[in-house]
Amino acid sequence: MDKPYVLGLDMGGTNSVLGIVDARGQVLGRTSIKTQDYKDINVYVQTLYDEAMKIISPIGSIEMFRGIGAGVPNGNYYTGRIEGAMNLPWQNVPFAEMMQQQFGLPCAITNDANAAAMGEMTYGAAKGMKNFIMITLGTGVGSGIVIDGKVVYGHDGFAGELGHTCVNRSPEARQCNCGKKGCLETYASATGVSRTAKEIVSTTDQPTLLRQLDLNSITSKDVFDAAEKGDEVAKQIFDYTGTILGQSFANFVQFSAPEAIILFGGLTKAGHWIMDPVVKAMNENVLPLWRNKVKVLFSDLKESDAAVLGASALAWE
Amino acid sequence: MDKPYVLGLDMGGTNSVLGIVDARGQVLGRTSIKTQDYKDINVYVQTLYDEAMKIISPIGSIEMFRGIGAGVPNGNYYTGRIEGAMNLPWQNVPFAEMMQQQFGLPCAITNDANAAAMGEMTYGAAKGMKNFIMITLGTGVGSGIVIDGKVVYGHDGFAGELGHTCVNRSPEARQCNCGKKGCLETYASATGVSRTAKEIVSTTDQPTLLRQLDLNSITSKDVFDAAEKGDEVAKQIFDYTGTILGQSFANFVQFSAPEAIILFGGLTKAGHWIMDPVVKAMNENVLPLWRNKVKVLFSDLKESDAAVLGASALAWE
Repeated sequence: MDKPYVLGLDMGGTNSVLGIVDARGQVLGRTSIKTQDYKDINVYVQTLYDEAMKIISPIGSIEMFRGIGAGVPNGNYYTGRIEGAMNLPWQNVPFAEMMQQQFGLPCAITNDANAAAMGEMTYGAAKGMKNFIMITLGTGVGSGIVIDGKVVYGHDGFAGELGHTCVNRSPEARQCNCGKKGCLETYASATGVSRTAKEIVSTTDQPTLLRQLDLNSITSKDVFDAAEKGDEVAKQIFDYTGTILGQSFANFVQFSAPEAIILFGGLTKAGHWIMDPVVKAMNENVLPLWRNKVKVLFSDLKESDAAVLGASALAWE
Repeated sequence: MDKPYVLGLDMGGTNSVLGIVDARGQVLGRTSIKTQDYKDINVYVQTLYDEAMKIISPIGSIEMFRGIGAGVPNGNYYTGRIEGAMNLPWQNVPFAEMMQQQFGLPCAITNDANAAAMGEMTYGAAKGMKNFIMITLGTGVGSGIVIDGKVVYGHDGFAGELGHTCVNRSPEARQCNCGKKGCLETYASATGVSRTAKEIVSTTDQPTLLRQLDLNSITSKDVFDAAEKGDEVAKQIFDYTGTILGQSFANFVQFSAPEAIILFGGLTKAGHWIMDPVVKAMNENVLPLWRNKVKVLFSDLKESDAAVLGASALAWE
């Protein structure tokens, strides 16, 4: 292979990380710039290029690269455009085309969760799988759906918004940032765990280590630490969260019959405290034909590399 | 094209209908046998062949056929087997292989709803579409999902059981035949409408034409007739049904971002009484980016032909 490398760009609202990746999923070099420092998208792309050259030159030249893959908030795979991403300095830019012109390399973009799915399929826990669903449990809940070995983009390029499937239609359902109520991500994200912690701690009389903390800022890490110490309320919080997540997974399984559902993101650090109720609720809520047949796995990519790897995976296609 | 025809088999628990179909979706001949008359699958397949020859000989010979497509309860596309269909005389038979040997033609099978999706894509309302979801509203709720022009079969061949997604997790949720509670099909099927009619009529004081009927046997046709006469309770029944269906569609849209959702089956005869609340609820419950963008359409295949056409569409592949 005379073009042994690709570039992976993980564009976040705060940092943009660019890495050099080989076919085995090794990150051979990385650099980053502050996304918000660049109000002009042209200057952003130019700066990325200059930074890229600094890490590429010790390894070889730009001719050794097959292309660029970018995981971008609201990135549309079909159009190559960033459209309406609230936390970026630019709205509606033809990002893939601009990168292509600047670098002289083909560039494909998609959103973060789809990039994560590509990363798992190319280098991670989904290697060899043709049908799986990637769920990212961070500040929100993202998803990337793979069917027959391909990420599902749908008619318009925006498929895979499972974090916004409705899990609660009661009037007391939680308000989501998207404007709707009862979205999965209001319960099953790191933020959702904090909300659940506040609700449960303030309505129970049970003793709990969490009561010593400021009710408005309990994190999923705090809940994990308490659970590890045997705190029953902390375990309840994960049970509640995992049950909602597992019930949703049952619905997802009935849609696309995946071989596995792969979990990534901050909340996965809760390990078996979150995994056990997820698996239990999923199996209780799927049709019998799928009971105990669909795997739920944690990502096995290194967290610091995963986003860049995922983005880079797009560039091999 | 020297093989201008295909055979389509619609196997139901009661009747098995076999038709000759051309590339334009014309049914040039049809025959049927009683499924339950054949306790021996070998005799069933042999009889189908004999019957087929009777309708084929006026047109030409078996050499003019490209293949056979069959829509079969619990038919597995990957394995060609019928596995665990409760309402058939046989369990676990290698049906595609048996047909292939008997007819000397390639045979592909899938379940009824997937066959319906193929039919719409090949000859019907989804012609030219690459991403859509087929929903059949009959005794149950079936679904066939098409992504990138292909029916989604998933890891095991059983994808697309949207009738069993959970729409109600309360203790009062309706019991489904599958063993679970709160499945979409307990609300949005013809049977679901009957249950809703019974519930609403027996708990309201409002005057309604439906009160004259036996509460235990109100059909969706009865409700339609009443709605057409301006009956407010009948309209409420369709609003209730359509709202649950539309809320579910919003979740489906967020999964695969289809261009359209296509409705087929008995309940579609309720026309705008069911369509209006479906569209309203779907648009109120999807993310803003899809609001008023996803079409909901009725099938435009003739009901008597649709199942055979759908099955036959498999044979062109």
